[in-house]
Amino acid sequence: MPTPFVTLSDFSALLRDLPGPDAGSIATARARDATLTKPPGALGRLEEVAAWYCGWRGDARARVCAPQVVVFAGNHGVVAQGVSAFPSEVTAQMVANFEAGGAAVNQLAGVAGARLDVRALDLDRPTGDIATGPAMSEAGCVAALTAGWEAVDPGADLFVAGEMGIGNTTSAAAIALAIHGGTAADWVGRGTGLDDAGLAHKAQVVARAVAANPARGGLAVLAALGGRELAAMAGAIARARSQRIPVLLDGFICTAAAACLEAEVPGALDHALAAHVSAEPGHARLLDRLGKAPLLSLGLRLGEGSGAVLGIGVVQSALACHSGMASFSEAGISGAPGPEA
Amino acid sequence: MPTPFVTLSDFSALLRDLPGPDAGSIATARARDATLTKPPGALGRLEEVAAWYCGWRGDARARVCAPQVVVFAGNHGVVAQGVSAFPSEVTAQMVANFEAGGAAVNQLAGVAGARLDVRALDLDRPTGDIATGPAMSEAGCVAALTAGWEAVDPGADLFVAGEMGIGNTTSAAAIALAIHGGTAADWVGRGTGLDDAGLAHKAQVVARAVAANPARGGLAVLAALGGRELAAMAGAIARARSQRIPVLLDGFICTAAAACLEAEVPGALDHALAAHVSAEPGHARLLDRLGKAPLLSLGLRLGEGSGAVLGIGVVQSALACHSGMASFSEAGISGAPGPEA
Repeated sequence: MPTPFVTLSDFSALLRDLPGPDAGSIATARARDATLTKPPGALGRLEEVAAWYCGWRGDARARVCAPQVVVFAGNHGVVAQGVSAFPSEVTAQMVANFEAGGAAVNQLAGVAGARLDVRALDLDRPTGDIATGPAMSEAGCVAALTAGWEAVDPGADLFVAGEMGIGNTTSAAAIALAIHGGTAADWVGRGTGLDDAGLAHKAQVVARAVAANPARGGLAVLAALGGRELAAMAGAIARARSQRIPVLLDGFICTAAAACLEAEVPGALDHALAAHVSAEPGHARLLDRLGKAPLLSLGLRLGEGSGAVLGIGVVQSALACHSGMASFSEAGISGAPGPEA
Repeated sequence: MPTPFVTLSDFSALLRDLPGPDAGSIATARARDATLTKPPGALGRLEEVAAWYCGWRGDARARVCAPQVVVFAGNHGVVAQGVSAFPSEVTAQMVANFEAGGAAVNQLAGVAGARLDVRALDLDRPTGDIATGPAMSEAGCVAALTAGWEAVDPGADLFVAGEMGIGNTTSAAAIALAIHGGTAADWVGRGTGLDDAGLAHKAQVVARAVAANPARGGLAVLAALGGRELAAMAGAIARARSQRIPVLLDGFICTAAAACLEAEVPGALDHALAAHVSAEPGHARLLDRLGKAPLLSLGLRLGEGSGAVLGIGVVQSALACHSGMASFSEAGISGAPGPEA
């Protein structure tokens, strides 16, 4: 089946037409929760996660059986500005490491029982240097969105988009600045290991990038300041929505890519939960702007989808409780507390 | 093999003689971490968890393969004071629910791949009402410590002690007040669902309990203010240490039981991590007094070991990364950043 978009304008129209959650499944899930063998509210955020997930799946007793993780990789022309502690060759080397099963995300996906796919996007042809002009043409951005769109398994029931791309925290910071304003210093962090001077330089590069790429609007920003792996993540997150597959957002880069969708069409991320908050300082700020409270806060700052894959276990656990627990009447338990108990 | 204690004094001596972590395994694990295909520190708390776990297991490339959860249940005479929203019969009904696989902890243990055992401790014979006197005699406390000691599978490699006992947040609050001071209001919460008047009454009961049981010292407090399931958790946590099995602490009640060990012998909880922080407000305060930072904060307030079982996935993930990832040299990756990269 051909992808249902050939221009960014098509993709924007598609975003406006994506399905919403099923209110009936949410109501039925909440009613079921109230019957389960626990005090009301005692499972905290797990209860909210279960209702959210059931709504998107259209199934009041859903479970997570087939999570999918796709790691997208791209190279960035802005690395020429000296914004990363690692050289660009590491992107392809890490792709080989993902394919050989040696990276962190491989181990985490194994624990979560998730399928892991890897999509390397024209690594030998970095995107344009955003410090001086756009990262991608419209056609280039559409191609990357398409790669993401096509990477999602329609049979998956929970989706994580991860990334690898030396220099991509610079791209993410530029996107955040262009969409949410503030100063470049608000959005930059040490990435894979910059020192203080490197951090100050990176902020200057981000400010220059945003000045050099004045177009605004979510998808225009994604094309101008993103990278192929960011555009692919955005395409995949939209595809997941079209298939009613809930999404767990990873760290700063994934969230910046996702923020382009929300900036283009408010509500476009309603099917996505923030799995974790990264140690990259712009991430907490960006999640706050998106109104997303992270499930986990473990100081990760790796990317690859690592934090989101850790979150799969939380979502699996929430649905296992919701759909597997006995009710008070099934268990023959007396005295569920009423208001005056 | 008989248990190596017959009095509380024996148990105290045993606590002073438990093994410590293996410094060599910690050093080797940290050295290995520095070679893995990620920026240094990028896995955040997972790195610290891996080194901690390797130290206790005496294996620098350990994995979590056989987690064990034991839920201990007991009944509390203090329920006569009207401190709980549920009647005491619910304890036995929930034990049946655990045994039938219908409770939250059953579903969570299933996701984590953990063995789950249930130990009901003389449910038809509640402990003494702490508002007027001791919960247990020394012999009664030793019997409960023994039940916990014997419940630990020496082949387990990660241990969680959970609990069920209507009224046991009152017991936990009294223990916390006796050991760490402050006021009763600092330590009480709504438990399974008290209203404001119930909460104020519970604080009065806790204050009376601590006044009625003046003996101090960790094990004396455990006997006087605990319950059988709290003493059993303490016995199990000590046994795990004797077998070099790391422990994940659950919520307020589990942590209060554990705090008795730490009060008796400082350092007795070094093999235990706080898996989560409960919504029961005394828990965060108690973890702070113990110097334990929780891995998860998801608003749970259920007990049963539920929060700690959720934490098993985090520890499994930490060790899967630590022991399964490729090194930079194995993966052929260039340019691990040095100080001036």
